Amino acid sequence: MKDSYGEREFFEKYNIRTDLALESHEVIVEKEGPPELPGVKVDTEKTEYATISRVTVESDLGAQMMGKAPGHYSTIEAPILREHNREVQEDIAQLLAKELEWFMEQSGLGPEDGVLVVGLGNWNATPDALGPRVVENLMVTRHLLEMSPPELRKGLRPIAAISPGVLGLTGIETGEIIMGVSERIGAKAVICIDALASRSVERLCSTIQISDTGINPGAGVGNRRLPINLETLGVPVIAIGIPTVVHAVTIVSDALDLLEKGRIGNEETDYIPKRTEFPVDPDFLLGRRQMPVEPIREQDKRQLIGEVLEPYMGTMIVTPKEIDSLIDEVTDVVAGALNIAFHEGVDYDEVFQYLS
Amino acid sequence: MKDSYGEREFFEKYNIRTDLALESHEVIVEKEGPPELPGVKVDTEKTEYATISRVTVESDLGAQMMGKAPGHYSTIEAPILREHNREVQEDIAQLLAKELEWFMEQSGLGPEDGVLVVGLGNWNATPDALGPRVVENLMVTRHLLEMSPPELRKGLRPIAAISPGVLGLTGIETGEIIMGVSERIGAKAVICIDALASRSVERLCSTIQISDTGINPGAGVGNRRLPINLETLGVPVIAIGIPTVVHAVTIVSDALDLLEKGRIGNEETDYIPKRTEFPVDPDFLLGRRQMPVEPIREQDKRQLIGEVLEPYMGTMIVTPKEIDSLIDEVTDVVAGALNIAFHEGVDYDEVFQYLS
Amino acid sequence: MKDSYGEREFFEKYNIRTDLALESHEVIVEKEGPPELPGVKVDTEKTEYATISRVTVESDLGAQMMGKAPGHYSTIEAPILREHNREVQEDIAQLLAKELEWFMEQSGLGPEDGVLVVGLGNWNATPDALGPRVVENLMVTRHLLEMSPPELRKGLRPIAAISPGVLGLTGIETGEIIMGVSERIGAKAVICIDALASRSVERLCSTIQISDTGINPGAGVGNRRLPINLETLGVPVIAIGIPTVVHAVTIVSDALDLLEKGRIGNEETDYIPKRTEFPVDPDFLLGRRQMPVEPIREQDKRQLIGEVLEPYMGTMIVTPKEIDSLIDEVTDVVAGALNIAFHEGVDYDEVFQYLS
Amino acid sequence: MKDSYGEREFFEKYNIRTDLALESHEVIVEKEGPPELPGVKVDTEKTEYATISRVTVESDLGAQMMGKAPGHYSTIEAPILREHNREVQEDIAQLLAKELEWFMEQSGLGPEDGVLVVGLGNWNATPDALGPRVVENLMVTRHLLEMSPPELRKGLRPIAAISPGVLGLTGIETGEIIMGVSERIGAKAVICIDALASRSVERLCSTIQISDTGINPGAGVGNRRLPINLETLGVPVIAIGIPTVVHAVTIVSDALDLLEKGRIGNEETDYIPKRTEFPVDPDFLLGRRQMPVEPIREQDKRQLIGEVLEPYMGTMIVTPKEIDSLIDEVTDVVAGALNIAFHEGVDYDEVFQYLS
Repeated sequence: MKDSYGEREFFEKYNIRTDLALESHEVIVEKEGPPELPGVKVDTEKTEYATISRVTVESDLGAQMMGKAPGHYSTIEAPILREHNREVQEDIAQLLAKELEWFMEQSGLGPEDGVLVVGLGNWNATPDALGPRVVENLMVTRHLLEMSPPELRKGLRPIAAISPGVLGLTGIETGEIIMGVSERIGAKAVICIDALASRSVERLCSTIQISDTGINPGAGVGNRRLPINLETLGVPVIAIGIPTVVHAVTIVSDALDLLEKGRIGNEETDYIPKRTEFPVDPDFLLGRRQMPVEPIREQDKRQLIGEVLEPYMGTMIVTPKEIDSLIDEVTDVVAGALNIAFHEGVDYDEVFQYLS
Repeated sequence: MKDSYGEREFFEKYNIRTDLALESHEVIVEKEGPPELPGVKVDTEKTEYATISRVTVESDLGAQMMGKAPGHYSTIEAPILREHNREVQEDIAQLLAKELEWFMEQSGLGPEDGVLVVGLGNWNATPDALGPRVVENLMVTRHLLEMSPPELRKGLRPIAAISPGVLGLTGIETGEIIMGVSERIGAKAVICIDALASRSVERLCSTIQISDTGINPGAGVGNRRLPINLETLGVPVIAIGIPTVVHAVTIVSDALDLLEKGRIGNEETDYIPKRTEFPVDPDFLLGRRQMPVEPIREQDKRQLIGEVLEPYMGTMIVTPKEIDSLIDEVTDVVAGALNIAFHEGVDYDEVFQYLS
Repeated sequence: MKDSYGEREFFEKYNIRTDLALESHEVIVEKEGPPELPGVKVDTEKTEYATISRVTVESDLGAQMMGKAPGHYSTIEAPILREHNREVQEDIAQLLAKELEWFMEQSGLGPEDGVLVVGLGNWNATPDALGPRVVENLMVTRHLLEMSPPELRKGLRPIAAISPGVLGLTGIETGEIIMGVSERIGAKAVICIDALASRSVERLCSTIQISDTGINPGAGVGNRRLPINLETLGVPVIAIGIPTVVHAVTIVSDALDLLEKGRIGNEETDYIPKRTEFPVDPDFLLGRRQMPVEPIREQDKRQLIGEVLEPYMGTMIVTPKEIDSLIDEVTDVVAGALNIAFHEGVDYDEVFQYLS
Repeated sequence: MKDSYGEREFFEKYNIRTDLALESHEVIVEKEGPPELPGVKVDTEKTEYATISRVTVESDLGAQMMGKAPGHYSTIEAPILREHNREVQEDIAQLLAKELEWFMEQSGLGPEDGVLVVGLGNWNATPDALGPRVVENLMVTRHLLEMSPPELRKGLRPIAAISPGVLGLTGIETGEIIMGVSERIGAKAVICIDALASRSVERLCSTIQISDTGINPGAGVGNRRLPINLETLGVPVIAIGIPTVVHAVTIVSDALDLLEKGRIGNEETDYIPKRTEFPVDPDFLLGRRQMPVEPIREQDKRQLIGEVLEPYMGTMIVTPKEIDSLIDEVTDVVAGALNIAFHEGVDYDEVFQYLS
């Protein structure tokens, strides 16, 4: 496994930052045309409230094009999560738990194998605080199990959890902290929770990605340089990520692209952007009316983007104003799913009764 | 005094949201050409670390064009605030204190007249939390003075402070809470601290606006519908605001405008955007090289913006990732300035020694 | 209604601070002997998980003796709340809601009459933060109802909520803020949530008192000087309080009293302290074995207490280490009960569907 | 080095919990009489604002009697810290820095040797949050130095910092996390910041202990079972602790002892408790007036204490109400002292200019 899979090249080519494999795939199909990517499979399943897309990156070429390491990426899209309905949240937590169980099984994890859950991100910066908040709501059991007689442990999994903070606050690469702790406690797998960057405003806090490729440098809302994966930790790493921001660069770039899209609409009369229900002029979208735009030189695009985003260019993020409460809700979904998936067939209350 | 001064019309015309009078003025000059606005005066003063611009809106016509109520707006621009230098912060606090003293004098406020400081905004949403954070760091004295013998009060001003929260959390318009409290305690003036929206990324957390026009509906990061001003409260209202967000709409719109700017560059060969040091192609900026863009129809711009910002369109905000620590720093500047301006010639430590 | 009902005298007599009427009554019976207090009635009801005691203070003499204003005090005692069982929490929330409905009915409150909920206390001091936390978890509806067509409002009660902070942070007496806001919005009743001081460690976070006598100066964990009651606000005030601290003075004083109790055990052979399951020597408790202690002079007690609590004497509080999570749990109980009691027969999800 | 040095025995003998070596010594002298403890040296130095006591435990016998591991304990007592005077705070920070430099030198630490600072305790429980808060205010440099050319690093020490959380939240013994991280990053020493329990209310947030004996099980406000010291980590461990709580057991026990003190006053006519300025009856203190108390059996004392502290007995803590702001102030003192001691002769601003 290499450390880099062309994330940088992908960004430089398309001016779009996304941590979702599903979106990388979308971007390529959109920009390069419909044919399938070599070595990349996409399966889709619909449930009552959600769409689950399972992207498998099988070849290095596919990985390089998408800027994503080879492996499995499951994405649960549930725009209905924005409606603050508790029943829906529980349904999605169940879906996520099932998906997670598949990943744990694939990793060869036994039912009593200990797991270290890691809440990545900066607890002081709301859009980056997803990981630490999930950890705060998690049922940790490792210490209880260690103090209990073995006959009571049956079927329970020892769960430990840390929020290692970010480089700027600790002076230590997050990956180093995880390595140190994971090795010390002999975890059989590491599950990282992270806030992601999406390409699409619509996916914020309504989409969940699970993958078995670990966390690669430059991914997520924070800036990490050390990969966190099977190779560096020596145990399987499952990453659960939820987009909480769109990079400002992406937003501006997308606007410019749409402008061009209008122009080349004539040739692609069937192009309808999938990710909006905004009541746009159908003539425009169907290319029946030209937008008066010539192709924009890549260099000019860069300049434009620089203009509007200086002096914070690389770090400007776009979030909904209500991001704080949105994150609280998906936190509940993820923490709930982890509690279900970790202790299969055991009720929370039971767990505590067993152990205390 | 009317409740609305064309904020909405300004936004619909230019697709730009700004709470800074200085930026409104800039936009108009930029879009409509160089001639002066009728009834709007702008004076500029340079200090070691900052530029102070004093905008006076004298006529209703000027107010309507700018989308800002008639009155005084002082703006301290100090990009150097981003350098985290404590000495600079203290210097800017002194500048702000002096400016504020001018506004208090203009309001006819005597040296022992009581003031109610109001921290507007939502303490749970980082970019909107400026007001409540300033209030937390303020030296409140009203209760100490009330308990002290009159001869000790000489030269000290009774300061009270509240953070009324936001409509969604209280069910009460912020303005109603302020009215109720201000009247009850007989405040002689109200000073509101608020997080603002700027047009320009560069001005975030490095610019401070003081004005005597109060807070009008729709201004600030939050959504307020009731004006907070001399008319509604019956006492002078001074507003201190600092931009902490740019609306995503503004960013995208600005990018599209720059695209057009390029096109019309030929006619305006001396146009150099003032607000960036980004190393752009000077040929492009000076209009020596055309950008291949036709004018974009207003309707199309709207559609494009809608496309990239759905479904959160109105509420998507752009901030630097490090917004939390940036706000902490300007909080210190504002709280420091208030403490200086309120208790002229009195040292903090002295104040506490007097009173406790 | 007077401002003071002998709280001070009660404390000076017994060296015990308690905000629970039930405990005041207990103390008197304990210290002065079994006969009933004139003008004080106590009824007790047992439920599956709780004991509800309803104390009615009918005469001024009873009020003076107990240091509590005349009126109704219902106390729900549920030691089982300490077991972190969600089902129990919901059951107690239902009990509290029913009790609260009785108080609202007694106050003559109609089903659509608006209520202002006030979270008293200092959000920065954990044991005093109960009120503000309940307010954060409350469903506020006033603003939604005001924007809805009248036919949709049927059966829904407009709820507003504020956390006014504490005198040291605002410079304003809490009571003044409540008066100002309550009057401005025309609330028909005020419900205050407050952290209380108990005499007994066992009652912390497991006991809830509802009363119709308002909040009197000196009550609660904070220090308030202005009463918050029907007289000062002009509308009925219902107070919901939960003990979160024991004053250190009380703990020490209780220890000294127990010492003396031992001595006088012979005369009162049937004295068994009700509030402990600690396995004490029954001979001692039943007075069959004398504790070798002479009566301690009141003055000496004071000196002893002063010795061990200087220099923070008046403000030293005793809490369990885990107070933060204990408060989170009772917060859920109280917020849940309020939501049930306010919108009788209406489901939360429904409320939101109606209104948004 | 052993894991336990009689902390338990000390507590069982005297019913007093203290993490300060100075207080252990005091208690023994008080209870057992004036002669010196074998193998324990105490030196005292007075400065303008503080008293520095340096306790050296040299023998195992002394260690066992005091319930403290052999080693050095410096204690800075500065009651004036309670006066919220910034100048005093800076003075004490300088004192602490100098003391800390001595300990670092003793540990054989070179000026460029990397240090891991560990903020022990639970950030959710105010009195236990001292460590995490200091870490938040610390200048971490390790990551900056690693990215800088060697010629710029001269004289700068790489500082890393973590707040590992508590067992109940992570499922991992704090000591295990520190071991894992310390080893991984190759720290040359570990400095732990911890909230302590004191015997004396007066010492809360006004006393700082530095020691080279590490953290032993059962010490501090939290409950740790794994020692954190040279033996377990393989590098020197310096602990900086500040008392933020008194155990309720200690308070009650102290009251009972004072009661007895009164009784035996006659024999010890010169006993005047040192730690209070409370205006007590001098006759009583000087033993000229007997308190009418017979010796209390140890077993009875236990019962009494159990009575008043059930059901939270072991975990009831006593703090001043204003503990939150008191901790904020000493946090500044400790973080300031660390920044000074770590980067000798280098100004903060300079450090940042060098490195960024």
